[in-house]
Amino acid sequence: MKTDAHAVLTDKDLALTNAYWRAANYLAVGMIYLLDNPLLREPLRPEHIKPRLMGHWGTTPGLTMLYTHMNRLIKAHDLESIFITGPGHGGPGLVAHTYLEGTYGEVYHHIDQNEEGMLKLFREFSFPGGIPNHVASEVPGSIHEGGELGYSLVHAYGAAFDNPNLLVTCVIGDGEAETGPLAASWHSNKFLNPARDGAVLPILHLNGYKIATPTVLSRIPEHELVSLFEGYGHKVHLVTGDDPRQVHLRLAEALESSYRQIATIQWQARHGHSLARPAWPMIVFRTPKGWTGPRELNGLPIEGSWRSHQVPLGDVREDPEQLAMLERWLRGYRPEELFDATGTLIDELASLPPKGERRMSASPHANGGLLLRDLRLPDFRDYKVEVSEPGTVDSEPTRVLGTWLRDVMAANQETFRLFGPDETDSNRLSAVFEITDRAWNARHDPNDVNLAPSGRVMEVLSEHLCQGWLEGYLLTGRHGLFNCYEAFIHIVDSMFNQHAKWLKVTRGIPWRVPVASLNYLLSSHVWRQDHNGFSHQDPGFLDHVVNKKAEIIRVYLPPDTNTLLTVADNCLRSRDSINVIVAGKNPSPTWLSMNEAIAHCERGIGVWEWAGNERGSEPDVVLACSGDVPTLETLAAAALLKEHLPQLSVRVVNVVDLMRLQPESEHPHGLPDREFDALFTKDKQVVFAFHGYPWLIHRLTYRRTNHNNLHVRGYKEEGATTTPFDMVMLNHVDRYHLVIDVIDRVPELAVSAAGLRQRMVDARLSAHQYARDNGEDPALIRDWTWTG
Amino acid sequence: MKTDAHAVLTDKDLALTNAYWRAANYLAVGMIYLLDNPLLREPLRPEHIKPRLMGHWGTTPGLTMLYTHMNRLIKAHDLESIFITGPGHGGPGLVAHTYLEGTYGEVYHHIDQNEEGMLKLFREFSFPGGIPNHVASEVPGSIHEGGELGYSLVHAYGAAFDNPNLLVTCVIGDGEAETGPLAASWHSNKFLNPARDGAVLPILHLNGYKIATPTVLSRIPEHELVSLFEGYGHKVHLVTGDDPRQVHLRLAEALESSYRQIATIQWQARHGHSLARPAWPMIVFRTPKGWTGPRELNGLPIEGSWRSHQVPLGDVREDPEQLAMLERWLRGYRPEELFDATGTLIDELASLPPKGERRMSASPHANGGLLLRDLRLPDFRDYKVEVSEPGTVDSEPTRVLGTWLRDVMAANQETFRLFGPDETDSNRLSAVFEITDRAWNARHDPNDVNLAPSGRVMEVLSEHLCQGWLEGYLLTGRHGLFNCYEAFIHIVDSMFNQHAKWLKVTRGIPWRVPVASLNYLLSSHVWRQDHNGFSHQDPGFLDHVVNKKAEIIRVYLPPDTNTLLTVADNCLRSRDSINVIVAGKNPSPTWLSMNEAIAHCERGIGVWEWAGNERGSEPDVVLACSGDVPTLETLAAAALLKEHLPQLSVRVVNVVDLMRLQPESEHPHGLPDREFDALFTKDKQVVFAFHGYPWLIHRLTYRRTNHNNLHVRGYKEEGATTTPFDMVMLNHVDRYHLVIDVIDRVPELAVSAAGLRQRMVDARLSAHQYARDNGEDPALIRDWTWTG
Repeated sequence: MKTDAHAVLTDKDLALTNAYWRAANYLAVGMIYLLDNPLLREPLRPEHIKPRLMGHWGTTPGLTMLYTHMNRLIKAHDLESIFITGPGHGGPGLVAHTYLEGTYGEVYHHIDQNEEGMLKLFREFSFPGGIPNHVASEVPGSIHEGGELGYSLVHAYGAAFDNPNLLVTCVIGDGEAETGPLAASWHSNKFLNPARDGAVLPILHLNGYKIATPTVLSRIPEHELVSLFEGYGHKVHLVTGDDPRQVHLRLAEALESSYRQIATIQWQARHGHSLARPAWPMIVFRTPKGWTGPRELNGLPIEGSWRSHQVPLGDVREDPEQLAMLERWLRGYRPEELFDATGTLIDELASLPPKGERRMSASPHANGGLLLRDLRLPDFRDYKVEVSEPGTVDSEPTRVLGTWLRDVMAANQETFRLFGPDETDSNRLSAVFEITDRAWNARHDPNDVNLAPSGRVMEVLSEHLCQGWLEGYLLTGRHGLFNCYEAFIHIVDSMFNQHAKWLKVTRGIPWRVPVASLNYLLSSHVWRQDHNGFSHQDPGFLDHVVNKKAEIIRVYLPPDTNTLLTVADNCLRSRDSINVIVAGKNPSPTWLSMNEAIAHCERGIGVWEWAGNERGSEPDVVLACSGDVPTLETLAAAALLKEHLPQLSVRVVNVVDLMRLQPESEHPHGLPDREFDALFTKDKQVVFAFHGYPWLIHRLTYRRTNHNNLHVRGYKEEGATTTPFDMVMLNHVDRYHLVIDVIDRVPELAVSAAGLRQRMVDARLSAHQYARDNGEDPALIRDWTWTG
Repeated sequence: MKTDAHAVLTDKDLALTNAYWRAANYLAVGMIYLLDNPLLREPLRPEHIKPRLMGHWGTTPGLTMLYTHMNRLIKAHDLESIFITGPGHGGPGLVAHTYLEGTYGEVYHHIDQNEEGMLKLFREFSFPGGIPNHVASEVPGSIHEGGELGYSLVHAYGAAFDNPNLLVTCVIGDGEAETGPLAASWHSNKFLNPARDGAVLPILHLNGYKIATPTVLSRIPEHELVSLFEGYGHKVHLVTGDDPRQVHLRLAEALESSYRQIATIQWQARHGHSLARPAWPMIVFRTPKGWTGPRELNGLPIEGSWRSHQVPLGDVREDPEQLAMLERWLRGYRPEELFDATGTLIDELASLPPKGERRMSASPHANGGLLLRDLRLPDFRDYKVEVSEPGTVDSEPTRVLGTWLRDVMAANQETFRLFGPDETDSNRLSAVFEITDRAWNARHDPNDVNLAPSGRVMEVLSEHLCQGWLEGYLLTGRHGLFNCYEAFIHIVDSMFNQHAKWLKVTRGIPWRVPVASLNYLLSSHVWRQDHNGFSHQDPGFLDHVVNKKAEIIRVYLPPDTNTLLTVADNCLRSRDSINVIVAGKNPSPTWLSMNEAIAHCERGIGVWEWAGNERGSEPDVVLACSGDVPTLETLAAAALLKEHLPQLSVRVVNVVDLMRLQPESEHPHGLPDREFDALFTKDKQVVFAFHGYPWLIHRLTYRRTNHNNLHVRGYKEEGATTTPFDMVMLNHVDRYHLVIDVIDRVPELAVSAAGLRQRMVDARLSAHQYARDNGEDPALIRDWTWTG
């Protein structure tokens, strides 16, 4: 349906819209440059200019225009919308809008809407102690910083899921559009359900340039561009121009018809007119970079070029010509028509934006904690594996977890989703498909199973999309879990960084309300990728995670099913954190009854007395373990020692909550030194079998009393397509090697246990040879009581 | 131009081609299942079946068909080609082809082309001690493992750059196509120069399913699919079917016309018929997953479904019905027609594939070390900064490096490229544009600078593409450098992992010839992202890197320009490693003359006597540093101590080669304990200012004698949009804090230096306040001699 432009924007609307845009641009330029004289009441002088010019102009005028027009659309149709700024370095534009519509002053009480407030705003923008120049968490209305590019569109979709009344406006930079994650994100429309989810309106901000080069999408023919986005499944609206009047008219029209298309799609889907996947609208907004800024400098173009990317005039303080150019630029917006004598936005303009929570900067969706509700969690104890004696009952930890997750999902049909790169079945969480499906809004085939538009399991072969969708979902006040093969979670290392940084900063912003934690379940882990081989073996995400601020980070290595259930329940209740759970999926012994598991997880670390043979005083040696496979090997080693060296007093310590190992000064879960010493002794040998890289344990414990006696075994990049037991042997974490380690480190055993040592060496060789000959492990080697 | 199918493939060709395909499929199924009876000379019995079934069938028949047809195309036109297998888990198919064309037996001499050889092949496939089941580095002809999906197409383009006669056949899985990196990779065609580069023929292997779900691209309408790839700039050839005969004919035709289009494009570009960017051909190959395998099991479809992804019949040993199905499946390929009485491929088929190096499995391009030539490196000493006295001459390290890189590029016009995500200028390597341009084959505008199809600087806003192109370029025997903002290099953490694993494995494969190292130059680093703020601050790539096998990894932190030149020269000469250089771009003092820099870098670590004030015996305290900003602060702290506490004997140790800190047992560059103790003493206090996270230093040194006295300052996730000096203050790495650290740790100073301590506290406060008031650092704070 073709819309008549004049029906959308009258001449008066046009003038007001343009004036509002000028006001936003004026403020944006002021933020980048001005230290004083905010309303240009006097001629601009060098001392009015900030000594260090920081901020990005190039993308700003495009962003301010889009925001201005979205305000109009919201008011015209009483919409709920949030604004996601892919070119997040365009902070000046977004901050300007939050100031103009009053939100900025509402969350930062020292900023009034007058000349003094404006001056304070200019000064604190990108100033030490002030606010960042990107659209960071300090900016009201933002759920997306955009410091690292590529994630705007996945965040937008994450926000839209289960928010039927929300229209997520998502501006995508044409630089950002070159990134991998963004290029894949367009296909998110195959996972959106128009009946129950909200809508995303992607706007490609095609201003032609990145930092120093043209963008790919701005330099392909228009027919290729349109073809590309039609291929992605969109209906394309082109808005092109450099004359503001014309662009205002075209943009208003494009937004209006996009809205109508969205409304039609949603109405049809919600009134039983079952549709094939609709072609959702998107807008290509092709306007000059640095629009309305200086045309050129020293004969080189600035407007419409990459030279406007950051600060277009860099020597304003020193160069009178540049100073004059800046003054002309600023006065070109005619601030005297926009702000009254006190520096307050004139009423006619102040009445333009939506009010209250309809302002995109004040939407509770963009401060998700406001909307967050606790999950209704079924009692995890009801899912326990019954254990009368440790290690006698096998279970598949993630499979059992799946039954609990199934019921979590059933009880929270609108606020919890499960994310994963086509690995939910492989990670054995399949029980969830008893009550829901995979979200799927592309074509269906008769043989399909567990696929539906209304599915709540989000599967796509892109860890980036899983992570980004989940982040968007969480930041808008919902809950979720990301299950992934352990090795490939590194794909989102950098997204994890950005989310951890976001949480760290928001924890210090009083008006930001806590959101649900981001929960990772890493399975198909390093020790059981024997069938896929070396490329699938990497436990290093833990190392990556613990580099971030301690208060954000939790790492759990439940050794069996009951501890996994306990830990998962804990994670789903937590806020403003990132929880990493590493758990196995293969049948494995259950060590603790549910009550023991709860007690063990509450402590996070503890002695397993039944596994050792301590007699009263301190043990001769401590066997520590963290992770399911290392725990199995450690318990088998302890059994070997008990059988063959009954005079040796052995203690077994298991670590579920990895951060307990750090000093309490370093991490909120850190164990006090006294308690640590009580567990690990002050001077006995400790052989620690760890799930990940061994040095991570050293990094966490190097300040502990007994660190010099700590000997860690873990993954050391030795792996292949082989058998499970060969994997632990290759990396020296096997039971025999742990026994050898004990013998080699306790001097008293050098002679007395020489025979046992040789038997352990022989047992390793024989297990190795058996695997080479038969392609599998010796009988019962998975049994922890098996001693070769 | 429409090709007549029958002109491509005669009936006889068709029969032979199909027979060859059957042979490859037979071998692939044999590898997955058979432990004995390789030629089915007797009825199949349970004991002929491997005890543990591993390998992926689903993608295999598609891969084998594509490979078979590429063989025909290569022979018909005497082409040079390599085959990149995106669905790299389809190892059985690729291994089968390398066996059939003889390469496998040439590199693994125990495998003959007869029944015994076939049996050995079946047994060692995916067997402990054998070869992996993915297309790993053990597979001749592979430069791409595909364990982690998403990088086939970037690897293909990397291989094609500067290889004008090479046709890179690249099969992309439709699962892989959902990943971000792959989705962005399609735009690589805007960076390919038909005149000088080779060609990439992308083949989308649309078999419909991932592990457990349909693929997005298989479930969008064909018009969207075609539109998408036309939007990416391709001419699309559709090959669809499930009848082998028809598909053979269509595929032969599609390959033939694709080849002709490529030849035409190249001929025109190479004969002065300047063209706009051509629409390169690509093929969509839509055939059933698990094609020719079992149709169904227990009433559920296998062929044409995700159930064929891995091992379609899982209980062959136990279930007689499945055993019979397997036997029917294998006999369906009629092995008795394909192999003679000795088990050798019949002559008629053996003559089909290309010979010698024309075999894709034997192409020297896929074993790039064979083609590698040393770079012609200009003498880096000619680019030095003249230094008469330490710290008196400022320079911008990366800018100077740029002049050397310019001349490296000029001297190696066909074998060296520079890669980066639009940050080459920002990282101040701009001198390279004096002699080359950015590669760019999209539309040009009159105002463009430094853009040309023949450019050798590869800039695209995707770290994934930069990394992947470079990997492909290196693995085919060329050289390169990837420059990147430090924080965002985490985007390729996982790609780095896979490449490091590839190098580790190839180092153990005798027939793999060493390739040039992968070199990272990380600039715009954590300490100078004060203007972009917290999101841009992350030095953790180093932590990630050092987790990989020590023999692969080098980390350099040159403190000034001359050391940077020395280190870079060293990296560009190295082989089979990954070198990470972290260097600043801002004007900063030059500490060492070129001769001193060379000597210092040769040692990798050393005492800077001129910076301390040792007198004869051991110092009272050691100030250690690594990284340019920490070195500046350390030297300023040493100057403060010398001035205010002249009686204190201070030693300054600088670390360029980070791995020198590890014990020699852990890393080939590791310093022997005695030398370490000589530098750091056995019992004096050490205050270490480090570029990255402080615990990395602890992780490297925890076994050292004096570790308990080591106190490390580094980045601890405190950052903002602020001033450079405020950044170091926020993280306690500033000169004042280092002095305070010394005073607090040397008991003798508690009283005597109490006044100095207070002055340091005051100086910090005053610098902080100055920044808050003025938006910049106090005058001269960048000057290392400035003491507040």
